[in-house]
Amino acid sequence: MINRIAILGTGLLGSSVGLALRAAGYKGAIVGWNRSVEGGETALKAGAVESLASDPIEATRAADVAVLAVPIYATLDFMEKLASVLRPDQLVTDVGSTKRLITETGTRLYNTAERAAFLPGHPMAGKERGGAALGDAKLFRGAVWLFTDDASVRRSPQSAALVKEWREWVAKMGSKTLDLDAARHDELVAWVSHLPQFTATALSALLEEEVSDAPELKDVGGRALREMTRLGASPFSMWRDIAHTNTEAVERALLALEQRLAYLRENLRTPALRDEFEQANKFRRE
Amino acid sequence: MINRIAILGTGLLGSSVGLALRAAGYKGAIVGWNRSVEGGETALKAGAVESLASDPIEATRAADVAVLAVPIYATLDFMEKLASVLRPDQLVTDVGSTKRLITETGTRLYNTAERAAFLPGHPMAGKERGGAALGDAKLFRGAVWLFTDDASVRRSPQSAALVKEWREWVAKMGSKTLDLDAARHDELVAWVSHLPQFTATALSALLEEEVSDAPELKDVGGRALREMTRLGASPFSMWRDIAHTNTEAVERALLALEQRLAYLRENLRTPALRDEFEQANKFRRE
Repeated sequence: MINRIAILGTGLLGSSVGLALRAAGYKGAIVGWNRSVEGGETALKAGAVESLASDPIEATRAADVAVLAVPIYATLDFMEKLASVLRPDQLVTDVGSTKRLITETGTRLYNTAERAAFLPGHPMAGKERGGAALGDAKLFRGAVWLFTDDASVRRSPQSAALVKEWREWVAKMGSKTLDLDAARHDELVAWVSHLPQFTATALSALLEEEVSDAPELKDVGGRALREMTRLGASPFSMWRDIAHTNTEAVERALLALEQRLAYLRENLRTPALRDEFEQANKFRRE
Repeated sequence: MINRIAILGTGLLGSSVGLALRAAGYKGAIVGWNRSVEGGETALKAGAVESLASDPIEATRAADVAVLAVPIYATLDFMEKLASVLRPDQLVTDVGSTKRLITETGTRLYNTAERAAFLPGHPMAGKERGGAALGDAKLFRGAVWLFTDDASVRRSPQSAALVKEWREWVAKMGSKTLDLDAARHDELVAWVSHLPQFTATALSALLEEEVSDAPELKDVGGRALREMTRLGASPFSMWRDIAHTNTEAVERALLALEQRLAYLRENLRTPALRDEFEQANKFRRE
């Protein structure tokens, strides 16, 4: 059923979807669109897409499935623009890192008898830098690909079949799929994804201020320091929309970490420090 | 000149020193002592030491160089016990992670005409778990091995020659040596080593509390989460003495990170978030 896929946004994730589909044996057409011409051409050269479209809306109208692989507000914008021009035999899916707004928008604008299907998705895979040049057919192997379908959605048999087929392609790309409620998704990724990122950003920014006058000290820090600050290289452009669309959950997680650090600081010389280490050890043991 | 080395503490670092010395071509004797018999035997079987001593003081009296590779308070204890029983033609050195107390003790008890030499050292190498079984001849390759000699120390030609020879072995083990003032050392490692560790501990302990009821979510976090919490596996036994002997500097670093996280939290929706990411990016670029 899926013979033509449009990938809107051929950055790291979009390019990797194209490459992974090919590696998984997908034989149909893959057309790409990218905001910057240069990024599109990199994806084209890498074989992530076989042609480039100049009009993303037209490209999507001609496809069975559109994969929105752009930042979250751009995803929401495309969802709005596409909803009224697509047909019920089409599927739109996405790879955005926060899902509450996107899933709500999908329920509001898609998934009715007259409208295309929308399946909110989130592959838990990435690199600290983006761009088509880093596209990787193996990026999704062994990763978890989350779906946050609204439980109230009742799809037509045609839409349901399209959704099923896309989920099968996700599995063929090597990911384990997992279904979660969208609000719960956003809460959980605040803890296991956004908090680690913002912590690395804060730690890197702080160390830039404190030790950048002694560059030899980055060597001194060794592997531990490199690891704890690697995500400090993540660009703002990838994280702005996450901060703006999951603000409350991220605020709660950051505040909890601030309090935990304060507790540890106040207990550097008390037996409570041992308990903190043991609690941390437990997290790594499971 | 150095023909017999005693390694007190054959854990990860002590064993690795033995293995690295052999790999670097050291042909003399290496005798080991370890608090637990089991750990000593593991080091012996691995070839990190060629014999085990039951009395660490006697083993050191018979050696040209003693390498103290035990936690910091145990290092200080050995320094006290050994000072009066060693000769001026002997050298004691250590691998402890904080250096102010150890360096002060070295100046107080060693480095006179009648006493053995003491050279405070700190190889910036390690793993998140300890133990002789992880001993690694390559552990120090490419690492920085810090020395924090007291600038006021005036060594005899004999002592100076021993110190020089030990430094040469450190270089042959593959490390780059770097000399730092001890107080400055402790301040700097608070930022580039202790702060990353305590951050990982606090983050891991917090996540254990928040998401351990949803074990599938560790997969969801992916590589970023694994990296940011790997140090959460570090045992308390390795970090207790660090927390107790560098408390003020670690407190300052932790407080600064708490404030940085709070600033980031208060600016998730303001342009200041971009500046924080750019500052963090800079740290990774240099």
